[in-house]
Amino acid sequence: MSKVRVHNFSISIDGYAAGPGQTLDVPLGAGGRLLHEWVFNTRAGRQMIGEDGGDEGIDDEFFAQREVGIGATIMGRNMFGPIRGPWGDAQWSGWWGENPPFHCPVFVLSHHPRPPIEMQGGTTSHFVDAGIEVALERARDAASGNDVLIGGGATTIREYLAAGLIDEMHLVIVPVLLGSGERLFEDLAGIGNAYHCAEHVSAPAVMHVRLSRMEPSAR
Amino acid sequence: MSKVRVHNFSISIDGYAAGPGQTLDVPLGAGGRLLHEWVFNTRAGRQMIGEDGGDEGIDDEFFAQREVGIGATIMGRNMFGPIRGPWGDAQWSGWWGENPPFHCPVFVLSHHPRPPIEMQGGTTSHFVDAGIEVALERARDAASGNDVLIGGGATTIREYLAAGLIDEMHLVIVPVLLGSGERLFEDLAGIGNAYHCAEHVSAPAVMHVRLSRMEPSAR
Repeated sequence: MSKVRVHNFSISIDGYAAGPGQTLDVPLGAGGRLLHEWVFNTRAGRQMIGEDGGDEGIDDEFFAQREVGIGATIMGRNMFGPIRGPWGDAQWSGWWGENPPFHCPVFVLSHHPRPPIEMQGGTTSHFVDAGIEVALERARDAASGNDVLIGGGATTIREYLAAGLIDEMHLVIVPVLLGSGERLFEDLAGIGNAYHCAEHVSAPAVMHVRLSRMEPSAR
Repeated sequence: MSKVRVHNFSISIDGYAAGPGQTLDVPLGAGGRLLHEWVFNTRAGRQMIGEDGGDEGIDDEFFAQREVGIGATIMGRNMFGPIRGPWGDAQWSGWWGENPPFHCPVFVLSHHPRPPIEMQGGTTSHFVDAGIEVALERARDAASGNDVLIGGGATTIREYLAAGLIDEMHLVIVPVLLGSGERLFEDLAGIGNAYHCAEHVSAPAVMHVRLSRMEPSAR
């Protein structure tokens, strides 16, 4: 069966995926930008935002994995945009401009229905109001045997972790302390002993960790 | 002025310094032993418990730093022993046998007074009921210009972090998920942006991170 994967999810040493005080102008909270600087120093990260340059190397290789073998992406409402509640005049089509960096069907978890949005480059966003398991079923169907990326944010990944639905997770530990903010690992008692470390490696700016779900028989 | 240092403090990927369900028989909680296995694979770690063997290398070099330039150690009551409340017949002299691995004056934070205990190898344990700042003053005096080690556990380090009193901190990130337990980083909003990363390096089993307090002018 196809796998459910998380890639390039950055957390601080003290466990925060976003800093305190998230707003529309500061979507990652105070200090949260520090968690993602590594991305924009890579060639693949620059390419994602339509820029040249950037470094090859460990960070670049890890970052690029987010597209390899992925056939559909799931994300939370807050990752898709800043609008809360009903969609209003429905002009918002994501943070990413005309040609979003997904190039596959995207399933946005939302309690507010909305017709799909077809963008350039193969990204069509669907809005799913039936829970994370239905969203995953739809994503698996759309992925036609390829893997499903859980794109984020922290709340969405946490929900899929709590449900035992994530097979592989690549975390990026950024050596800063944020002091407060939104945690990835919170109320997840069930994941104790559920993953083993497949790889951990230090790059100059960050530490990469790949976790794989253990077969229940191996726990 | 002498520095206040933390060394070899292990946390899981999800931020726990001990697993759930700590008891006298399982002082590190379920799965908590995983956090410290790396120590007992090092030469210096084996030496600490009176055994030969163990590996040299990155882990060994980091572990051995806990003694270099240290003139006194502070620890919490729970790190000293399992007894809660009054000391009773006061036979308990620590987890470490006749010759504890500190070789310097030790200051144990306790609300229950008790005369000092002099052990072999230069370890004399004093019991301080006047708060963390007084304990640090006494430790600095006893250290005669050398540095003070905050030995642990998590609660004690957290108190010193919250008070802004720790200058250097060596953390060891162990690539396991414990799911629940006791966190090091909790209710420490004030440490956001207070430390910079002096070094981070992956060893085969764990990741080492050294943090140094930034001068207030640099924040």
